[in-house]
This record gives sequence, C-alpha cells and structure tokens, in this order.
Amino acid sequence: MKPEDMFVMDLKTKEYVRKPQSYKPSACTPLFLAAYTMRNAGACIHTHSQSAVMATLLYDKEFRIANIEQIKGIPKVVEAGNLSFFDTLVIPIIENTAEEEDLTPDLSKALVEYPGATAVLVRRHGIYVWGPTVTKAKIINECIHYLLDLAIEMRKFNIDPAGTIGSEKHAHK
Amino acid sequence: MKPEDMFVMDLKTKEYVRKPQSYKPSACTPLFLAAYTMRNAGACIHTHSQSAVMATLLYDKEFRIANIEQIKGIPKVVEAGNLSFFDTLVIPIIENTAEEEDLTPDLSKALVEYPGATAVLVRRHGIYVWGPTVTKAKIINECIHYLLDLAIEMRKFNIDPAGTIGSEKHAHK
Amino acid sequence: MKPEDMFVMDLKTKEYVRKPQSYKPSACTPLFLAAYTMRNAGACIHTHSQSAVMATLLYDKEFRIANIEQIKGIPKVVEAGNLSFFDTLVIPIIENTAEEEDLTPDLSKALVEYPGATAVLVRRHGIYVWGPTVTKAKIINECIHYLLDLAIEMRKFNIDPAGTIGSEKHAHK
Amino acid sequence: MKPEDMFVMDLKTKEYVRKPQSYKPSACTPLFLAAYTMRNAGACIHTHSQSAVMATLLYDKEFRIANIEQIKGIPKVVEAGNLSFFDTLVIPIIENTAEEEDLTPDLSKALVEYPGATAVLVRRHGIYVWGPTVTKAKIINECIHYLLDLAIEMRKFNIDPAGTIGSEKHAHK
Repeated sequence: MKPEDMFVMDLKTKEYVRKPQSYKPSACTPLFLAAYTMRNAGACIHTHSQSAVMATLLYDKEFRIANIEQIKGIPKVVEAGNLSFFDTLVIPIIENTAEEEDLTPDLSKALVEYPGATAVLVRRHGIYVWGPTVTKAKIINECIHYLLDLAIEMRKFNIDPAGTIGSEKHAHK
Repeated sequence: MKPEDMFVMDLKTKEYVRKPQSYKPSACTPLFLAAYTMRNAGACIHTHSQSAVMATLLYDKEFRIANIEQIKGIPKVVEAGNLSFFDTLVIPIIENTAEEEDLTPDLSKALVEYPGATAVLVRRHGIYVWGPTVTKAKIINECIHYLLDLAIEMRKFNIDPAGTIGSEKHAHK
Repeated sequence: MKPEDMFVMDLKTKEYVRKPQSYKPSACTPLFLAAYTMRNAGACIHTHSQSAVMATLLYDKEFRIANIEQIKGIPKVVEAGNLSFFDTLVIPIIENTAEEEDLTPDLSKALVEYPGATAVLVRRHGIYVWGPTVTKAKIINECIHYLLDLAIEMRKFNIDPAGTIGSEKHAHK
Repeated sequence: MKPEDMFVMDLKTKEYVRKPQSYKPSACTPLFLAAYTMRNAGACIHTHSQSAVMATLLYDKEFRIANIEQIKGIPKVVEAGNLSFFDTLVIPIIENTAEEEDLTPDLSKALVEYPGATAVLVRRHGIYVWGPTVTKAKIINECIHYLLDLAIEMRKFNIDPAGTIGSEKHAHK
C-alpha cells in the first residue's frame, strides 16, 4: 500500500482531500468516523476473522474474558493505563445489518454505553478495533484476536473464559 | 507459472492451440470446460482442501450456510449482484467417481439443477469454484473456503451453519 | 542444505564415501537403509509430525483410511500404479523403542508383512515414508500427511476414516 | 534485532553496561536472572503461547507428559544427557501475579523444588524456558511447545498425556 492508494478526508467537512483513482471509499467509512470522532481514535481496524465471528456465536450481548496475561495489552480508555491481569475485558456485540453503513447507529450506541470499549464485535460479521495511533491500534488488535482465539479454545474444554481463577478445575471436558 | 507452462485450447474445436512439452492436460479438463461453456466462466479453480472434504462428510446433498457477512462475497449468478447477509449460500454436493473425468455428467447436472451455483463440492474429494475472471474466481474461492472453515468450526459447537440468527443460542456444546 | 552437508554411503560396503565435518550420521540410518535395500527406495523421509503421533494414539495396529481422493497419490508398491479412490490405505504401526536404531527389526518385519506399505508409523514417535525418488517420496509424504490430518479431523466428528461411503451419515457428533 | 538493540548487564553488579536508547528493560529481567544465576543458564525464553496458557488451564500443579519421542529433546538438568522416551517430562506451574517481576519468588521456589526443570509455566500467562546456550534454549523451547500442543490435542480425545503406553486405547472419545 502506497500513499497514493489512500483516501484522505477532512475530518471537519467530511470531504475527501485526496482520492485514489481506482478505488471507492470503504463502506465502513462512517464506522471508522465514529471511532475517530467519539473516541478520538488515530486508527481503526476492521476484520472478518473467524475467531471474532465464532465469539459472536458463543456469546450473547458481550464477549468477556478475565484473568489472562494478554489482557494487560488492552487500554482502559476511560483513564490512562491498561487493564490489569485481574480485570475483565468486555467487548460489546451488536447485531449485523444488510449494509455495513447501517451499523453506525448501533456502533455509536455501544460506544456510549461502553465508555471503556476499544472494540466492538458485530454478530456473524467481524470486529472493529481502534486505538490512539496506527501502531497502538495494531497492538490492541493483536491482543484482542489472541484473546478471542484463546476463549474459543477454552470453550472447547467447557472452561468459562470469564470465570474466576481456579474455576477451570471444575470445567474440564 | 509462466505462459509457456499453460495449455491453450480452442473452445470451439476443443483442440490445443499450444501445449507445454513436459506436462499432460489435467484430468479435470472436461469439468473446467463445463464451467466455461455452461456458466460462461472465465476461470475455474479446483482444490482438495480439507475443509471442502470435511463439509462433504458433514452435509448430505447440499452445503448450506446463512447469515454470515462473508456470504456477501458470493455472486447470485442468476442475476447481477451478490448474495446478501440474509441469504443462504447453497453448494450442491455430487458423489465422487474413480476417474476425475467421469464427474462431468453429475457436475453438468448440478449446474442445471442449481442455476445459482458458483461452485460444486465433490464428496470425499474437494471442490470446483468458478467465476467470470481469474481475479473474481479467486475472490469467490477465498470466500467459499472461509465459509467452509467456519461451518466446520460451528459444527464443533453444534451450531447449525444454516440456522436462523439467534438459533446459535440454543446450540452450544 | 548443500552437497557438502550430506553423508554419502556406499550401499554395498555400508562405508561412508564422504562425511560432513560438523555432523554425525542420523540415528535413523539403519531404518533408511531398510527402505533402500528391502524396498529399493530412492529416498526416505522421517517426521515427528503431530498428526502422525496422534494417529498412533487413535489407531491400534494399523492406520486405515478409505474412499478419499488423496489416496490416489499413494503407490500400490506391489504392482505398478497408484491406489484408487475405492481402495483402503493401510499403514502399519510399530511400537517405539528407547533408541531409534532399535526400531530396525520391527520396521523390517512390517516391510515383510505389509508388502504394499510405502510408510510405517511409529507409536508416540512419528512416521517413515519412502518412494522411488526424492520427488516422489515428497509427494507420497505430502499425501500421507494430508490423510493423517483429515483422519484426525474425521475422528473429532466420530466419523470412521476407514468406513464405507455413506457411513459418515450415521456418525456425526 | 541488532547488537545495539540489546541490553548488556554485568551479572555480578546487576548494572547495565550498555542500553539501547529507545527501549526500557523487560519486566521479566529478575526472572531471566533467576534462570541465569540459579541454573547457570546461557539464555532464557519467555512466551505467551496459547498452548502454554491452555496447559495451565488443563493441569493443576504440574504439566506432565510421558512416552513421546520429542521428550528426548529435553535435558535432564540434574545430570548430563537428555530425558529418555520412557521418562515423564514435568514442568511446574506457578500462579500469576499482577506484575511480572512479582513472579520471581515463586519461580525461584519452583527452581529449588524441581531441580530437573528446564522450564516453568505461569498460570493464565505463559512459560519461561531456558538452556545452556541460545541455540540449545531454542531447541528446548521448540520441543516443549511441540509437547504442549500435542498434550492439548490428546486431551481433546480424552487421552492422558502422562498415561502409560497403551492407556490411550481405553481413552478415545
């Protein structure tokens, strides 16, 4: 990807300052804008990773995982610093819509209801992850996907990813 | 792969215009021709991917998956445009034969019976996927393999890949 | 790997014609020699792949898989040509020993008892695969590992890899 | 990674002889030092691999695996030479703490209680693996991760990784 492959938008006017000739803007643009404006994000990542989709099939309203070291890579958002090992990472799950841009109201609502969220899962679709910079968004995204993968493996052994430390002893397959 | 490694056939006369010296034509040639002539395909891909084979062991006459975002990457074929998130992707499954060319009658029959199919699974063997161009066939193939992989993971949790949205809540392992 | 990294042995005298200075000969040498002398193999491959080890934990005396297209990549050995789709691939399993060279008697015995075998599994250890040339041994090895991987996935769904076509319908998890 | 990216510490004085300008020392430093001083290790590797974390969820006080060829890649530590195929590899599991450096007392205790250990697992966190040199630590680490992966697959089939040879016959799913 080169600079000339990228869209450049003026955040205030929402007008494109520069456009590549051969692409059309992502249908996710209003979703990225929600992260940029409501969370002051510097970058937003969207994936259709299978672990994100599986998580939305195994959880109802929220993906929850607790007491795993990798949680320490996730920012608290509502204040400086990251979650601790003993915290529970909560990622809200919103329902999918026929068109990607129609996710915007529910995504915006989730951002209000979950002021500490740095990601939103979309049922049977994927995940949006953001952060203050491109580098930090990539690190957060990597941590979240690690935790999604792990949670699915835990569920294969009937271990509750949000369970207390020691609860796994009573949960083996 | 270089141009001189490829077979070039005249579609009308079925005669080779050019042949590499050191290869023999694929046993799949009549199957590729069925996609080219009956579907006006510009490219046809054949894989023995394990997820394709597993899908034919977990499904009877048709592979079916519904309400997954990635379905939006699959063309409707019978009319312009792609399937929607709320559509069900249906891929017919035909039985395998001792020799690959003997699959042609059943593949052709499936193409007639499933006018919207852009792929055919072969039990205990693999899959044929086609599209209007090489690039589009590769995208369709990637989407289908994503959905095959996901369906198998869903089945590990007893979730019906063709179930309605919300049916997954009653299906967990 | 460069030519000077390889051991060159005279097959008749079993003496090394050339040795790299910094390596010692593989403990598998007598096992490779069994394939070279008893099967006239041109190359022998040994792996500790997890699917080979898992197969030896899921099967008793023989690994068996039938009616999968990839079986057509395995030579019949006892006569020219490869197995057909309707054939059953049988790979004998021998017990492991403390030292690799002590596998030689059981491997040799398996070669006599299974004249059609082009591979031998070693319980809780791995697999030996051979073929008439390096290229063919690599193709056979790739086909066998594909089939080992698939068989383990089939077992996760309680499908018998050696079952008849259609038996999978009654076997789903 | 280049030499100027590395921290160089005087083992006696615990003072940095050289520091890269743009990094801060790892929070694992006291843990690495425990391996260097208590085991005379030449290198220590720390990973958050999912198989290490899963192992700490499936085992209580110790990870145990026996009678697998790859165990022969693990040194006995208490004397020269490596474990044999018939030996049981035992890796102690310690509880995680909020801060990585606070693991030091429990890690040090495990090193005393398990004089033959060449690795320590940390519950819901990861693993520390060491060896006499960088190359040997990498080989040991690779063998241990192979065994962790395999043990988790064995558990999916209800096979006890530390069971006797033949116990797997009574354990299939």
